Amino acid sequence: MTAKPPPDPAAPPRSPWPGSAATAPARPPEVTARRLVARSRIFRVEAMDLIFSNGAQRTFERILGGRDSVMVVPVLGAETLLLIREYAAGTDDYQLGFPKGIVDPGEDILTAAGRELREEVGYAARRLCDLQRVTLAPGYIQHGTRLVLAQDLYPSPAPGDEPEPLEVVPWPLTDLDGLLARPDFTEARSIAALFLARRYLQQAHQAPAADGKGRSAPGNASSPSPDETR
Amino acid sequence: MTAKPPPDPAAPPRSPWPGSAATAPARPPEVTARRLVARSRIFRVEAMDLIFSNGAQRTFERILGGRDSVMVVPVLGAETLLLIREYAAGTDDYQLGFPKGIVDPGEDILTAAGRELREEVGYAARRLCDLQRVTLAPGYIQHGTRLVLAQDLYPSPAPGDEPEPLEVVPWPLTDLDGLLARPDFTEARSIAALFLARRYLQQAHQAPAADGKGRSAPGNASSPSPDETR
Repeated sequence: MTAKPPPDPAAPPRSPWPGSAATAPARPPEVTARRLVARSRIFRVEAMDLIFSNGAQRTFERILGGRDSVMVVPVLGAETLLLIREYAAGTDDYQLGFPKGIVDPGEDILTAAGRELREEVGYAARRLCDLQRVTLAPGYIQHGTRLVLAQDLYPSPAPGDEPEPLEVVPWPLTDLDGLLARPDFTEARSIAALFLARRYLQQAHQAPAADGKGRSAPGNASSPSPDETR
Repeated sequence: MTAKPPPDPAAPPRSPWPGSAATAPARPPEVTARRLVARSRIFRVEAMDLIFSNGAQRTFERILGGRDSVMVVPVLGAETLLLIREYAAGTDDYQLGFPKGIVDPGEDILTAAGRELREEVGYAARRLCDLQRVTLAPGYIQHGTRLVLAQDLYPSPAPGDEPEPLEVVPWPLTDLDGLLARPDFTEARSIAALFLARRYLQQAHQAPAADGKGRSAPGNASSPSPDETR
């Protein structure tokens, strides 16, 4: 394990909250042993023996994942989201969410996003923007997901590997309440992607037009991220 | 497996998107066999053999989880979020996020939320509101997480089982951009919880005051959910 940087000095000052630590840990825990404790066709579980800086010892398990996945928020025209409704084996029901998939070996994020978009909703995008990387459950899952906004769509279907055709569900970006109220729109990644995409589009809309000082075009893959512009 | 309801008739009408299904599947897939294919101290992996309504056969794996977890968004005063910074074994680094934990057997959601709040940030809440249930990755994880908003806080620490003291990090609710820009605030559940809590607080702020017609108080656990009020 590599050493971790000290706590972020830019973090806001802490108050002495009751019952909580007055200071951050002296240093990150040391991993004294790792072993594979279970594996299946898809999943590998690693146990890690840890010694924390205060001397406490624990064994934690985590699900190993070599590669990140990508989740795409496709916006058709100015304000129609394209969602897919698909069988979800984990919850054994149909779930509404954004298209997603594993990033193939050697594939870059935006290429993977464009591929999943063509395979799952039948469109390609002239503009793809890497919004943010998120994790699922960092306490016990290693891999993460890159959230990508797709705009300027045009029809360009590609064959996927789904067992049955996916249902594509258009949804007005203005009806966020209706989408969040649906009992089949539950995935935290999709909810985070929805809010982050809307926030990005709102900030892009508010940004100054191309004048040599502001951003040349919102959503361009080479533009600064929204966080860099504010 | 129990039969699934037909597609939601309240869903918006579909257009014939290129390369996608014109209609939803005739019926949900049938599970023809289930077996435990891996287990460790913490995790159990089940393989399910499935036959889809179009005849396609697949074997999917999922991580079984008996109980949901709960994640709490604590708001101190009018606009200070309380976050925790904690070692995350999955990503082997320190992550900033909202307090969370497993709902104990027989424990209700709000009781579990109140307990985790006391153990992890040292406060109790006079108002707890069940915002929404989210899933992590419904394609391969069975369990979900209940997101709970905690308001009207007062000091009331309780001992937890953490290996080292948790760092509590206050954050102004007005500085959403700063929080989302932090490299250690990555968890999709925390990001979803942040946006959903802010949306709830904004809607509660806009709701009419108690007059016998509107809600009596925003955030009360017995009040209708924000989705029911719009």
